Amino acid sequence: MELLTDRNTMRAWVQQQRTAGHRIGFVPTMGALHAGHGSLVRESLATTDRTVVSIFVNPTQFGPGEDFDRYPRIFEQDRVMLQELGCHALFYPDVASMYPSGFQTAVTVEPLGSQLCGRERPGHFTGVATVVTVLLNLVRADRAFFGLKDYQQFVIIRQMVRDLGLDCEIVGVPTVREADGMAMSSRNRYLSDEDRQRASAVSAALSAARAAFLAGERESGRLEAIARRILTEAGIHRIQYIAVRSAAALLPLEKIHEDGVILTAVKVGKTRLIDNMVLTLPG
Amino acid sequence: MELLTDRNTMRAWVQQQRTAGHRIGFVPTMGALHAGHGSLVRESLATTDRTVVSIFVNPTQFGPGEDFDRYPRIFEQDRVMLQELGCHALFYPDVASMYPSGFQTAVTVEPLGSQLCGRERPGHFTGVATVVTVLLNLVRADRAFFGLKDYQQFVIIRQMVRDLGLDCEIVGVPTVREADGMAMSSRNRYLSDEDRQRASAVSAALSAARAAFLAGERESGRLEAIARRILTEAGIHRIQYIAVRSAAALLPLEKIHEDGVILTAVKVGKTRLIDNMVLTLPG
Repeated sequence: MELLTDRNTMRAWVQQQRTAGHRIGFVPTMGALHAGHGSLVRESLATTDRTVVSIFVNPTQFGPGEDFDRYPRIFEQDRVMLQELGCHALFYPDVASMYPSGFQTAVTVEPLGSQLCGRERPGHFTGVATVVTVLLNLVRADRAFFGLKDYQQFVIIRQMVRDLGLDCEIVGVPTVREADGMAMSSRNRYLSDEDRQRASAVSAALSAARAAFLAGERESGRLEAIARRILTEAGIHRIQYIAVRSAAALLPLEKIHEDGVILTAVKVGKTRLIDNMVLTLPG
Repeated sequence: MELLTDRNTMRAWVQQQRTAGHRIGFVPTMGALHAGHGSLVRESLATTDRTVVSIFVNPTQFGPGEDFDRYPRIFEQDRVMLQELGCHALFYPDVASMYPSGFQTAVTVEPLGSQLCGRERPGHFTGVATVVTVLLNLVRADRAFFGLKDYQQFVIIRQMVRDLGLDCEIVGVPTVREADGMAMSSRNRYLSDEDRQRASAVSAALSAARAAFLAGERESGRLEAIARRILTEAGIHRIQYIAVRSAAALLPLEKIHEDGVILTAVKVGKTRLIDNMVLTLPG
């Protein structure tokens, strides 16, 4: 596995792979890798010729008072995991390489980026869209893989890529969950044992809403209420949002007929957790 | 010369040229072509293998009350001129192709884009940066050519390309002027004969400032005053700005030592005119 640490070496590696006729898969991450990332990497390895993973804790997507400083950084562990998975290259730039002196460009996706998590975290999705644009331009991947755990991010990136005419297929990969249903996240390690147990109510709440949907409930408000009740019963009271939306464009819908998604963000202890589940009829 | 009218045919043409090993030059325009555009096209033809020109009057870079509706559209004349110049392809998309339904991405370059023309035309450079990003992604040119007449636009695009990691060399091409010094512009045709005559004071004012600079004047304020006096003496009183800045980053400078630029925007009749001249010592 090649280690690339600045824009130029990244670009040169890509040029080499392209000249050799390889199709490139790309998995952008912030490190602190878990089985969810593993699933993205395996999907890339299975469907492209060369897989590059980036590890970059992007400062511009963290707001003031958020966890940029304490975000887990375990590079050596990540590197070994990617090596063992069979990754071909690891892009690990520093901030000065990604944001050279004088940097002043921003990519916004509005209104998609200003609702749900974007309302709670102003500027977050501008930071995400900007850094992903830079990464996609450097890597020029045929396919880039994003976890559906960050569903809103996935929809925003897909829209941005379409809008800006980036020649890259954006692939959403299903959320990987712990045995109790909890969505894997680098931030789960922030949780105390007690909070971790309580946090399992998040996926349970969404599952209950999905079960109600599959049993015939179509009203968004009622589906949201079902999930909300389970959260509060578990002692999760700081619910930033719980919302049923259209799956394709995250539009508010009074009733879900097909292709909905229920999304939530809550705080458990000091940790902000997000999760979602699609609401689609089987077949 | 091939005529391409949507994103997909544009992309396919590029793919074909790249496969054949051709280096691609790109000249984005809003049509109403004049000798200034001709100079851009010739520069592209001389330094790349295949030249594509786009003609797209981009609605998002016009503010309310600006001249989007009456902007000159003379497609057939433009097409003949490009054909005669030896252009290889003409990209002439409609608005729906450039901004498909649901489009919601914007590229901003701040603070570069919010000063000078950006202060007079809020949102203008966001419209420019966004459409140029889309065009550069579609055309994937080796070199793209921009007129230095739109100096601030050139600096913004160059910064944006660097920031976003777009793999394209941005080339600035010197302003082409009429016999009396007036910078060529598609908007010059708006001017009445009388206003056209008066408008020649714009380049005269900048030339006088440059002459003073070359004669040893270094104070930005005095250089601006020299130019301002010539404008007002010619009866041009609606001066939106007249500013000496650093040439590289458009920073305000009290004194110019090397690499300055003097820029102005004025209104003559109903027509907004811009022009600039670099302030550099010979050799």
